[in-house]
Amino acid sequence: MDDPILVEVLRGGLVESRHRGAAAVVNGEGVTVLAVGDVGRPVFPRSAVKPLQALPLIESGAADRYGLSDEELALACASHSGEPAHVEGVARLLAKAGLDESALACGTHWPSSQAAAFALAKSGLPSALHNNCSGKHAGFLCLARAMGIDHVGYWRPEHPVQLAVRAALEDLTGATLSQARCAVDGCSVPTWAMPLTNLAHGFAKFGRGRGLSPLRADAAARLRGACAQKPWYVAGTGRFCTEIMRLLGARVLVKTGAEGVFCGALPELGLGIAVKCDDGAGRAAEAIMAVLIARFLPLSDQEHVAVARFAQPTLRNWSGIEVGALRVTGAL
Amino acid sequence: MDDPILVEVLRGGLVESRHRGAAAVVNGEGVTVLAVGDVGRPVFPRSAVKPLQALPLIESGAADRYGLSDEELALACASHSGEPAHVEGVARLLAKAGLDESALACGTHWPSSQAAAFALAKSGLPSALHNNCSGKHAGFLCLARAMGIDHVGYWRPEHPVQLAVRAALEDLTGATLSQARCAVDGCSVPTWAMPLTNLAHGFAKFGRGRGLSPLRADAAARLRGACAQKPWYVAGTGRFCTEIMRLLGARVLVKTGAEGVFCGALPELGLGIAVKCDDGAGRAAEAIMAVLIARFLPLSDQEHVAVARFAQPTLRNWSGIEVGALRVTGAL
Repeated sequence: MDDPILVEVLRGGLVESRHRGAAAVVNGEGVTVLAVGDVGRPVFPRSAVKPLQALPLIESGAADRYGLSDEELALACASHSGEPAHVEGVARLLAKAGLDESALACGTHWPSSQAAAFALAKSGLPSALHNNCSGKHAGFLCLARAMGIDHVGYWRPEHPVQLAVRAALEDLTGATLSQARCAVDGCSVPTWAMPLTNLAHGFAKFGRGRGLSPLRADAAARLRGACAQKPWYVAGTGRFCTEIMRLLGARVLVKTGAEGVFCGALPELGLGIAVKCDDGAGRAAEAIMAVLIARFLPLSDQEHVAVARFAQPTLRNWSGIEVGALRVTGAL
Repeated sequence: MDDPILVEVLRGGLVESRHRGAAAVVNGEGVTVLAVGDVGRPVFPRSAVKPLQALPLIESGAADRYGLSDEELALACASHSGEPAHVEGVARLLAKAGLDESALACGTHWPSSQAAAFALAKSGLPSALHNNCSGKHAGFLCLARAMGIDHVGYWRPEHPVQLAVRAALEDLTGATLSQARCAVDGCSVPTWAMPLTNLAHGFAKFGRGRGLSPLRADAAARLRGACAQKPWYVAGTGRFCTEIMRLLGARVLVKTGAEGVFCGALPELGLGIAVKCDDGAGRAAEAIMAVLIARFLPLSDQEHVAVARFAQPTLRNWSGIEVGALRVTGAL
């Protein structure tokens, strides 16, 4: 099935580029409330499921044992921009578990924040702490330490940490995570492809706790609370996830993933959202997510205006001249 | 008409993302040799037509009057990476016309070369010279000076410089560049949408000179020679345009444009190529262009292997682990 065009990129009065995609909104009972495009095709969720991957960190007692703060729990759910306070937070998280950056297996890249990258370039080079996934990896390491097992190789599919993460993902999404649908993520941990309906169902359950064990529901609530309290730690300055959660607080949890994936929960409505832009474009996935939030969540006029800025961003060139805009189509 | 999927992005054994697009190969007489997807839809060529936009710089006598070198002419056709020798070359080009960077209206951005950007960040900030279009703008300014007219506002559609550029584009492509299809490019000059067949025809004529006035054919040959001699100045270290032209010399001229556009000429065959990836992805446009070059141009085994690396790039994560690949589909 061909996915419909969901986002058009305008330059002047003409459509310059087009993004196709699929989106699912599902409630806690697994009932699909909205389906656009092929919502049954397996999609690698990539970093969009980091909040779900962090559940065992709480459930195991590791977060309590090491006294993790909301900032540190938000970092465990984050694709952060590598700004100084992100990096310091991850280092602190690791230190609480008696480890340091040498234990991280996520690889090294420059901060995605241009300002942070250029500031860092003046005096040094990035480390694995600057990798956008370092908080998640620090959480995995913390979990391994609390389990009393060797943390080396914590990123491999057969390591007890990843088995625990996989079990949580299966419980939440109801998807069978088969080897045939497993690939290696950008930070080397496994990523399992599953339909958008399963992803959205998982986020619906994560957002409200229904259909989960009391322990797991409590863990989800704690992670949601941490992200709502400290949204800057989930992404960074000016980023979509941070700005949307800062604006709407605990009424929404949103998490971006690579290659045009976006997941979210609307806890007060018991709904979960999963989006995949076919071509992997983050700009389109953000616009789609903004439109879906505005469609389902009751918003004040002021909130509506703020969310609409993400749904229909204006495009400007290097001289600040308005050259076009993104527009979500009627297919959504 | 729906464009077909031309490039698949694989992760593990599954398709993670998909890029649709259109491509046209046209000969100097305007006969379409290959058409995939909707090759009649208007496409903003963006920076892909920079070599054509540089024709008046030669034809006017400006290049001779100011003694422009091959490096400087290649920069006038370039989307450069902002590496030190690019920036120095553009400054030199401007100085030959008695101007400096304060005359540039392209706007400022950091070098697209990460190494150049971080090196620059240690000691300073970027200027308009670092803008990837600064060489083209320097050429426009040089043209204005040689025409003996006020260079201020050289980027506006009604300025004689842009009128000369527009006339050259119309002559080469045979397209009528109407106001309804005009938009503002990233560097503020006009960009006119036209069908891929017209773009490909324009590059076929540019590549061989047939169908052009002797003056214009000579100008095209000089620009082709400059790009073939100094391909590093057309893009930069490790970039597709630079590497392909370094590999194949004067047998190919390729030029990338924003939003998934790619144009090229195969002079010895008299063919022009124009590609547009629907969603604007450069990674897909490069793979498509590499496949088309390998299909039409007779290559040695060694050249074939080198071009294939661009047609089917391997994707690695931050730890260097192979996680997937790009694959051009049978639709091309």
